[in-house]
Amino acid sequence: MRTLPLHKAFTLIEPGPVVWVTTHDGERPNVMTITWTMVLDFTPRFALATGPWNHSYAALETTRACVLAIPDAPLLDKVVGVGTCSGSDTDKFARFGLTPVAGRQVQAPLIKECLANIECRVVDIVQAHGIVVLEGLVAHVSTGYQRRPMLHAVGDGTFVVDGERLNRRRQMRSKLPPGV
Amino acid sequence: MRTLPLHKAFTLIEPGPVVWVTTHDGERPNVMTITWTMVLDFTPRFALATGPWNHSYAALETTRACVLAIPDAPLLDKVVGVGTCSGSDTDKFARFGLTPVAGRQVQAPLIKECLANIECRVVDIVQAHGIVVLEGLVAHVSTGYQRRPMLHAVGDGTFVVDGERLNRRRQMRSKLPPGV
Repeated sequence: MRTLPLHKAFTLIEPGPVVWVTTHDGERPNVMTITWTMVLDFTPRFALATGPWNHSYAALETTRACVLAIPDAPLLDKVVGVGTCSGSDTDKFARFGLTPVAGRQVQAPLIKECLANIECRVVDIVQAHGIVVLEGLVAHVSTGYQRRPMLHAVGDGTFVVDGERLNRRRQMRSKLPPGV
Repeated sequence: MRTLPLHKAFTLIEPGPVVWVTTHDGERPNVMTITWTMVLDFTPRFALATGPWNHSYAALETTRACVLAIPDAPLLDKVVGVGTCSGSDTDKFARFGLTPVAGRQVQAPLIKECLANIECRVVDIVQAHGIVVLEGLVAHVSTGYQRRPMLHAVGDGTFVVDGERLNRRRQMRSKLPPGV
């Protein structure tokens, strides 16, 4: 994995991929599958929707840190597996053969098998709406990450794989932030 | 267009598509392209990230209503066009040949050419983070909407079209809300 300049990290979440959120509660790491995320700004800040019904929530709230890890399409069955069991009784890294890698700024691990990982700190939790606001601290990408298809959850148990990529950079130029 | 049961409407936004947000300020309709959206819950509630720099924001804040309209992939150049001009000096419906259709519960129009439209009311604006919280009121879908590929913005001027759809309904059953 190499570092991606932080001002480009929003491009990893903007397409709306299924994401793994890793945490570390001080004793052990955990990971959950989530698809309710969005970009908030280019600095970058992100939002995710979750709440106390997820085992990872306590670690998010206490440690104020996590990693957004982005699996590629071949990892679908692990994505489903991670999303349908709980860290309360399962070591998901061991069970699904995921490799935790130490990050630079947070104790939550990166996941080696993912196409990208973003170390984040929790800057706010909007309790009224179950929204966790994150600030990206360091972004890491794997070789060829832009050619590895992401997954999108439909929410009905089906998933859509990235298809063709269309280039409209020239037409979008006036709206792209500097250096992107 | 036919009505989609409201408890299924979250499946239109969960995949992370590029969205058109229509508003009506009492004088005329407007539409903006946005990709920073997420699902908040199954009722359904949605969040979108925007702010006063968008011309549509004033109408969102004042009328407390909008429509989330989902274009399909063949509409890409209109998506880019709508996203790179402003309603302050442009009638975007006329310029891009989009057909406004009256909704049931809000004055903001549906867009006939889209694969789906969700009428929404604004339930809250979280000023600190530029997050608008929406409640879906009525969802409308076009014939064959599930076979029409959505678009995902990467944020660098490129767009990804939906590819293959993979079925994991059986494995995901424990996590699907009733009736989905």
